[in-house]
Amino acid sequence: MLFRQLFDKESSTYTYLIASGRGREALIIDPVKELTQTYLDLINQLDLKLVRAIDTHTHADHITALGELRKATDCMTLMGEFTRAECVSDHVSEGDIIDVDGVKLKSLYTPGHTDESFSFVLDGGGAREDAVFTGDVLLIRGSGRTDFQGGDPYKSYDSIVNKLFTLGDDTLVYPAHDYKGFAVSSIFEERNHNPRLAGKSAEQYADIMNSLNLPDPKLMDVAVPANLACGNAA
Amino acid sequence: MLFRQLFDKESSTYTYLIASGRGREALIIDPVKELTQTYLDLINQLDLKLVRAIDTHTHADHITALGELRKATDCMTLMGEFTRAECVSDHVSEGDIIDVDGVKLKSLYTPGHTDESFSFVLDGGGAREDAVFTGDVLLIRGSGRTDFQGGDPYKSYDSIVNKLFTLGDDTLVYPAHDYKGFAVSSIFEERNHNPRLAGKSAEQYADIMNSLNLPDPKLMDVAVPANLACGNAA
Repeated sequence: MLFRQLFDKESSTYTYLIASGRGREALIIDPVKELTQTYLDLINQLDLKLVRAIDTHTHADHITALGELRKATDCMTLMGEFTRAECVSDHVSEGDIIDVDGVKLKSLYTPGHTDESFSFVLDGGGAREDAVFTGDVLLIRGSGRTDFQGGDPYKSYDSIVNKLFTLGDDTLVYPAHDYKGFAVSSIFEERNHNPRLAGKSAEQYADIMNSLNLPDPKLMDVAVPANLACGNAA
Repeated sequence: MLFRQLFDKESSTYTYLIASGRGREALIIDPVKELTQTYLDLINQLDLKLVRAIDTHTHADHITALGELRKATDCMTLMGEFTRAECVSDHVSEGDIIDVDGVKLKSLYTPGHTDESFSFVLDGGGAREDAVFTGDVLLIRGSGRTDFQGGDPYKSYDSIVNKLFTLGDDTLVYPAHDYKGFAVSSIFEERNHNPRLAGKSAEQYADIMNSLNLPDPKLMDVAVPANLACGNAA
């Protein structure tokens, strides 16, 4: 399997390019508009054909590359069924399997950071660890804020504890962001060492999340409307 | 196998923490002094015991954590045989195998960025791809400057083309730095798509490297003397 993690320094966003290598079809998760040419060059150099571009949710801190990638490659764009982004061509529901040339992703509805966030579980097929792309719901030793776009700390807790934490201990955790220098974690690590969640009740978690008092993302007023329009400026 | 890539945003340095998971012994490659506590916390949370801290070469852009990690964990510190760093306890030569609890690294002398740089080839054991930690000699779609610390573009070309590029196509390339958002590459990718090297002669490569006119790293006057003293300030 071909697996490439890419990082946008400006927004600290992680993007994932994945292909089985059998028939050269590839998918990409949470791509950033400014890096579109980087992705296209890499896809070309690896002799891949992009067939699916996926956003875990409507990002508020960067503009999605979904629209640009569709223009350049004719790939299908995909998000969860509750997205309000207008130009997404393929919508998944809980449990749906996305199969790209043998790369299998299972869709999990994981609201909390936004009310339309999905996570995607990559089946390692026994040859490698399973992995879960958690978007902004579960971050490494953290979690995504719950104070806008239909965010809800109780839903976030439920998504993380009752859905993501029921995955196997060795399942690798690949979030959409990291701000501390981590690239990957595991369900074992987050269940036991995530300071917001380990040993915490839903009420304790909600208290933590409601006390964060974070400033709005600097790109929020630009990014959310643009992302609802596939990355095109309003 | 447990494999964690960590990133220092300040110096764009990648650090690698690796353990087989059998007996909990771990090694770390190119750790950054400022992130020492992050490494120690992660090692503790993963129930690991650090036994080897390795620098690929004497870094000029950040201060090594080798001294701090030795103080905190009693690990052995390791570099190649030609280092002038005074307090390294273990030195490897070309072909030497470092075996930490079944994690096997083969030492390759790869001068060019500095005259004492080593690369280390991780044996995937058939279960996963082999990988090579290239320090600053080979970067993703780039290569480390060759204009100080005994650097030499012809030696860099020889190390990359006649040593690293003879590794298998699928061997993953993990450098000590990236400035463009890449986390990993492969020998196939670099042999075919590294713009400084693909299809270039040694003379053409030397011309490119000799024309870079890069400013000195901002930490050079601090980092080199400190790194020769195991990360302690002079």
